[in-house]
Amino acid sequence: MNQYIRDGDNPDITEERLKATFDVDRFTEFYHGGAKRLKSRREVEKYIEDHKELQDTHPTPFMSREELIDNSVRKLAGMAKYHKMIDMTNIEKTTYFLQLVHVRDSMAFSLHYLMFLPVLQSQASPEQLSEWMPKSLSGTIIGTYAQTEMGHGTNLSKLETTATYDPKSQEFVLHTPTISGAKWWPGSLGKFSNHAIIVANLWTNGKCEGPHPFFVEIRDPVTHKALPNLKLGDIGPKLSLNGSDNGYLMFDNFRIPRNNMLMRHSKVLPDGTYVKPPHSKLAYGGMVFVRSMMVRDIANHLANAVTIATRYSSVRRQGEPVPGAGEVKILDYQTQQYRIFPYMAKAIAFRIAGEELQNIFKKVSKQLRQGEASLLPDIHALSSGLKALVTFEVQGGIEQCRLACGGHGYSHASGIPELSAFSCGSCTYEGDNLVLLLQVAKYLMKVCAQPVEGEICGYLHKKSSNTISELSSHRTYSDHQIIQDWEHVTRRVVLQAFQKLQAESATKQKHEAWNSCSVELCKAARWHVRLYIVRILLAKISTAPEDVRPVLRALAKLYIFDLQVSNKGHFVEDRYMSSQQIDQLKSGISEALATIRPDAVSIVDGFAIHEFELKSVLGRRDGNVYPALMEWTKHSKLNQKDVPDAFEKYLAPIMEKIRAKI
Amino acid sequence: MNQYIRDGDNPDITEERLKATFDVDRFTEFYHGGAKRLKSRREVEKYIEDHKELQDTHPTPFMSREELIDNSVRKLAGMAKYHKMIDMTNIEKTTYFLQLVHVRDSMAFSLHYLMFLPVLQSQASPEQLSEWMPKSLSGTIIGTYAQTEMGHGTNLSKLETTATYDPKSQEFVLHTPTISGAKWWPGSLGKFSNHAIIVANLWTNGKCEGPHPFFVEIRDPVTHKALPNLKLGDIGPKLSLNGSDNGYLMFDNFRIPRNNMLMRHSKVLPDGTYVKPPHSKLAYGGMVFVRSMMVRDIANHLANAVTIATRYSSVRRQGEPVPGAGEVKILDYQTQQYRIFPYMAKAIAFRIAGEELQNIFKKVSKQLRQGEASLLPDIHALSSGLKALVTFEVQGGIEQCRLACGGHGYSHASGIPELSAFSCGSCTYEGDNLVLLLQVAKYLMKVCAQPVEGEICGYLHKKSSNTISELSSHRTYSDHQIIQDWEHVTRRVVLQAFQKLQAESATKQKHEAWNSCSVELCKAARWHVRLYIVRILLAKISTAPEDVRPVLRALAKLYIFDLQVSNKGHFVEDRYMSSQQIDQLKSGISEALATIRPDAVSIVDGFAIHEFELKSVLGRRDGNVYPALMEWTKHSKLNQKDVPDAFEKYLAPIMEKIRAKI
Repeated sequence: MNQYIRDGDNPDITEERLKATFDVDRFTEFYHGGAKRLKSRREVEKYIEDHKELQDTHPTPFMSREELIDNSVRKLAGMAKYHKMIDMTNIEKTTYFLQLVHVRDSMAFSLHYLMFLPVLQSQASPEQLSEWMPKSLSGTIIGTYAQTEMGHGTNLSKLETTATYDPKSQEFVLHTPTISGAKWWPGSLGKFSNHAIIVANLWTNGKCEGPHPFFVEIRDPVTHKALPNLKLGDIGPKLSLNGSDNGYLMFDNFRIPRNNMLMRHSKVLPDGTYVKPPHSKLAYGGMVFVRSMMVRDIANHLANAVTIATRYSSVRRQGEPVPGAGEVKILDYQTQQYRIFPYMAKAIAFRIAGEELQNIFKKVSKQLRQGEASLLPDIHALSSGLKALVTFEVQGGIEQCRLACGGHGYSHASGIPELSAFSCGSCTYEGDNLVLLLQVAKYLMKVCAQPVEGEICGYLHKKSSNTISELSSHRTYSDHQIIQDWEHVTRRVVLQAFQKLQAESATKQKHEAWNSCSVELCKAARWHVRLYIVRILLAKISTAPEDVRPVLRALAKLYIFDLQVSNKGHFVEDRYMSSQQIDQLKSGISEALATIRPDAVSIVDGFAIHEFELKSVLGRRDGNVYPALMEWTKHSKLNQKDVPDAFEKYLAPIMEKIRAKI
Repeated sequence: MNQYIRDGDNPDITEERLKATFDVDRFTEFYHGGAKRLKSRREVEKYIEDHKELQDTHPTPFMSREELIDNSVRKLAGMAKYHKMIDMTNIEKTTYFLQLVHVRDSMAFSLHYLMFLPVLQSQASPEQLSEWMPKSLSGTIIGTYAQTEMGHGTNLSKLETTATYDPKSQEFVLHTPTISGAKWWPGSLGKFSNHAIIVANLWTNGKCEGPHPFFVEIRDPVTHKALPNLKLGDIGPKLSLNGSDNGYLMFDNFRIPRNNMLMRHSKVLPDGTYVKPPHSKLAYGGMVFVRSMMVRDIANHLANAVTIATRYSSVRRQGEPVPGAGEVKILDYQTQQYRIFPYMAKAIAFRIAGEELQNIFKKVSKQLRQGEASLLPDIHALSSGLKALVTFEVQGGIEQCRLACGGHGYSHASGIPELSAFSCGSCTYEGDNLVLLLQVAKYLMKVCAQPVEGEICGYLHKKSSNTISELSSHRTYSDHQIIQDWEHVTRRVVLQAFQKLQAESATKQKHEAWNSCSVELCKAARWHVRLYIVRILLAKISTAPEDVRPVLRALAKLYIFDLQVSNKGHFVEDRYMSSQQIDQLKSGISEALATIRPDAVSIVDGFAIHEFELKSVLGRRDGNVYPALMEWTKHSKLNQKDVPDAFEKYLAPIMEKIRAKI
């Protein structure tokens, strides 16, 4: 039985579910990585369903910023009571709990869990940890992580905030010399945190030792008032995250004890002697971890948008291609399928890539703990590239899903504006996408000059066995052939960038040569990442349950062929592919759209996104969109009065005057 | 002298202005269509600068929805006093006045001016006009236009609202049979309008005569209370336009006099006899007019975003390519140039195309008034296609500009979130973009089957004189050659779609054949529109003042070459272009970026966007971004108190309990 079919549903959506060619629950198990993980998700959902204090009082788009913050902190206080759901040994479950309680209105304390605690864990010495950790877990310390400054992001060495060691008092003096050196952006820095990890350039014995982290109390632990000699507050409204008090912070010769420098890796001794860290690359690990989480999370945002657009398209009827036969579901239009299904495929492909990244990360972490860091460059490049590519493409996909919902997509009732606003920040935070792509390119250029082996980069030095593609029919185009063709093109693009860089380097200074090739270098990085996704996607799908596999294959083909056709210039270059072969891929796309069509609603059902997370009138499981849209209007404060205040205040007097004149 | 250079400016931005190779004011004159139009713009700006009542009290992103509405209606009431700026004989000036007062918080009554008055003008009979127009202009009638329903958009014939003529009482009975038939979306329908033009399916003598417009009073003219037998209200928050009360309306057998049907074209006689309109296509004129306005407006949104990104990139420094030489302006990075400059080029290209569309519209209107409608299909297709292409590409461009501003792009201080949210609705309203592209395709398919002449479509039946492109160096690539190459590719794409459609039609029903080709048909439509833009852009630039022309040519080349390289598959297909020729275009792109770089700030200065319109801390003329960002935070209500209410309310009690336990 399909658990998504229930009495009272819109018959248009039930009809879709009856057409499914596979078992939805089996799809869900595959998609969520097994029955065990799925079970723990369901526990979290049940728990929140049972506890009203963990739910919104009414839809967040109707809330002012002040109400959003109130709502967010109220739920957070609720969470404090339900501690047992926060289990640091089950990160998957804990993260889902936090996420499903706070969804996209953002949690005031997300940085406490996502940055403050992990950084303490990895950078504080054992003695420091034993002092600070219990309080940080109990709830009396609320922490955030403050690195970025108003005028400084990527280039850490130029952070303006200084921590100057004073051996006389054995203290560090934190100072912000200019406005552009103000810490700027950290979540919950403005109003709710009472502690922060501050990244500042360390000066000792008259020498700058570069940026280091410090543990700093910023508000009184009891009164919560800001401490003297610092200035802090909210930075104002943002595209999203308005339930959070992203803040600024400036120090005016603010003193902290020597021991408040996080000293696991580097140290300052009482006399001011600086002791270097043993491994300089260990700090990378954390970034890779955060980015691997991000890829899967952001893919999930796309899955949300695709769910909304697909379900709505199965109940919205418009246009009458056969006069008199009635209006058809908009999902029957090829243009609508082509708007949504490629992103359905991407949501799955990106999720799989994100999962795989997490698996690799686990391996690398194990090695790192044994002091072995050789795999770090590979995974660092891969995670940077995936983060850059996925976050950007997800934004485009969410926007297409919004457009697929027509006018209603523009209403907050669709849920898509919130999704879009929330997730588009990911293109910038944790590394600007172009900066990251250039890092990938840097790594690729090294690999070009100095062969490496292994799955991720080995293709660059492989000799192509073909000068033309073996594709004869899209139906018989094997995984092996597909990868061969992709490797051929990716290798060419990367090597062309390498050759261009070498040529430019012959006549220009190194940084000028690099700059003049950087558009090409970014393109090369993107192809490298795409090839990785294609490879992982095909491999993973071959392990899917038998009934689920055919539609997953259709989605994979849609993803892959569509990229090939959209970039056909690269595939026909050097006549590697012919126009006839490109036409085959086009036919493959049409066929994939038709194959996916009857399963579309069941695929998004299979994503198993809870209605608390979906927050969408258009994406409702039951398809009863229109009555729900009318219900939605009841939350509007404007509807509490027939005649609005602004009419009485401004217009009535003017209209009276005009009438008097007539 | 460059009027944009002033004392106290950020020296980084002054340095840019001193590098300009042309006279900024001459650029502005060219861009705004002559000295006369520019003068009237400046008058409007001066006027608003002098009248505080027409300005925002503080930045709109800090306002709740209720405050936004209050602010909007307050300014509107201010406008009523300053009537003389609203001059229906100078649409250009009036529109700019309305726009600069209300910018992107949207005017509560925009539909009164943009739809209600124009529809009355074109659809009411002379007798009706003389009755309704004076009141509609005086301010006692506030009107809107209600066509779209909750469940019905594009396909007008399926609107559910009915107007059934009752010959006994000589009245129409307006009725909404179901929730999905509720009027939904019209601006200011919910709360502020007291009249609406309602589009309903007309029934008389037992027969449906299709959708017709009716003039309907919906609120009491004095008390402003909603009239009996109708239900209306606000539809809730939207991505933007939250200063407006987009509304819903349902009729319960609501009666209006027979004379309230707009009877210029069709009529219902007292006995119920229906009289058809003489020309069925006359109604198209209005749509074409609105879309031609839209293209230029939306291009202007992109110009706003490009202004912000360019100015900010000239004062933001990050990264130190030469160690010790200091951080460089981010505008010096090729990747940043490639992120922004193609959209700078598009902002100009789209503006020029929009202006040209308005010129053509004027010609066609003149013909229409003489009863001649032969040019309508051409301009209808062109305006539909331009609207679809431009609105979509502008969204992508605004997003790239946001990303170009790094983290600060995500803050409302950048002004870009408002710009983006406001303008992205344009992809859907006035016709969903895909629906419009398919209309263009339909027209193109007709032209393929049945040759026409003229500039816009003539190329489709021209014999190509070349089998390969004549391009030898990008520097000598003439306008004539460029257009020849573009015509070749566009012709091929359109004819391939035509052939595919014919092939599919041989075995399928007409609507099925159409549907199975629709992805290709949309592509063909896009190429047709792009070719038009390329042609117009090159032609218009050749008329620019001599000192302005070189940089405009660099921008045009960037626009054109970038499209060719991104779509190189189409240009190398049938070996029309070689890889070497594509490489030439790539070199042309690099060269164009370098040519534009020193002029970049002066180009956006040349757009002459007033700071009231820009509403951006990052895009300030003076470049003093960082102090202004700190000033901006003072508007945040959260900063009025050191310790936030939500802390006292929810967290203090919990923390106290925890401390008591320890």
